[in-house]
Amino acid sequence: MLRVNYDNQLNLLHEEITTMGKMVTDAINKSMDALVNKNSELAEEVIAGDKYVNSKENDIESLALKLLLQEQPVASDFRFVTSTLRMITDLERIGDQAADISFLNVKMSHRTYQKSDLGSLIEMGVMAEEMVETVVKAYVDGDADLAASVIEMDDKIDEYFNRVRKEVISDVKSDKFTTKNSLDILMIAKYLERIGDHAENLAEKIYYSITGEYK
Amino acid sequence: MLRVNYDNQLNLLHEEITTMGKMVTDAINKSMDALVNKNSELAEEVIAGDKYVNSKENDIESLALKLLLQEQPVASDFRFVTSTLRMITDLERIGDQAADISFLNVKMSHRTYQKSDLGSLIEMGVMAEEMVETVVKAYVDGDADLAASVIEMDDKIDEYFNRVRKEVISDVKSDKFTTKNSLDILMIAKYLERIGDHAENLAEKIYYSITGEYK
Repeated sequence: MLRVNYDNQLNLLHEEITTMGKMVTDAINKSMDALVNKNSELAEEVIAGDKYVNSKENDIESLALKLLLQEQPVASDFRFVTSTLRMITDLERIGDQAADISFLNVKMSHRTYQKSDLGSLIEMGVMAEEMVETVVKAYVDGDADLAASVIEMDDKIDEYFNRVRKEVISDVKSDKFTTKNSLDILMIAKYLERIGDHAENLAEKIYYSITGEYK
Repeated sequence: MLRVNYDNQLNLLHEEITTMGKMVTDAINKSMDALVNKNSELAEEVIAGDKYVNSKENDIESLALKLLLQEQPVASDFRFVTSTLRMITDLERIGDQAADISFLNVKMSHRTYQKSDLGSLIEMGVMAEEMVETVVKAYVDGDADLAASVIEMDDKIDEYFNRVRKEVISDVKSDKFTTKNSLDILMIAKYLERIGDHAENLAEKIYYSITGEYK
């Protein structure tokens, strides 16, 4: 009976984390959409939505700690709760970064730029979203290979950051558009790189918790 | 007897968090020192030291969870453990940002710049360090006024960021030095602003946990 209850709560925790993962990948997607289409309303929606991500974090934290308390506190429960707490903290930060991108989107929506001016930033956004989606799946399914694939993706997103940085330097030198725009594009690239870092961090911990080995 | 044990463990937790706080304020201080004096060895020291911050986080997390398990899981213990877990996560991120600054310091140490070229960045570093120091003290002493002072400091560090951003835009326009240098200075300002955000986040939670009111 206790075991059934434990499994139910574990399932609930997985569902809740999947929901939270969906909230933040949606936020990344919308923030990039708002950037490309200069949609400041959509950007405001992402900013306003961040508080729901935060309250989801609080809910899941309580759930995880209660689950820990109801179980015998053996080593593996400790590790499980620990990994869940890390998971939601990173997801919450990813939501923050998406909101940060949206703050810049609102400012940028009044300025002159084309989709083509964004260069590698758009592909970088797609990659960041994919990393977060994949790492949540790796956690819920306990899939070490998926986790390993996210770790590998991090090198690629770092490459993208360096590419955007070079594009920005060249734009500034050639006066392609205002320095303000260029610096904001660089900031967005930095936020996306950070999202990649959070996803990689998580992937490393998930990989370790499944295989017992560091990748 | 149980109560004595609880108080002992609580004191230990406070000591450990004070130690962790000292580790990350030292890291901020050294990274700014390395920047001003182009001291790449000191920067490497900060980067290498980040792993000790991470392992301190793990130690404190185990300690906090064990303390929770040994106590009756009433609401206030929950909140206490929660605030401790949040505290160490934010401190760990602050350590990451200091290491990120140091990565840039290593790259920049080979380039041409003077202390005077860093503009408002130096004062911004001092402020970031002070915010972290103050928030750790507010947590350990349970001092709501101190926590409130950190929340107020965050507006100032945001102002500093905007000031550095303007300086960077003006440097780029006047070709004062290479665009690379300017962009790296802006990145360091962003990292310092992030450190301020983490400190403010913590201060809000501490203020709430002491007074029961949101600031």
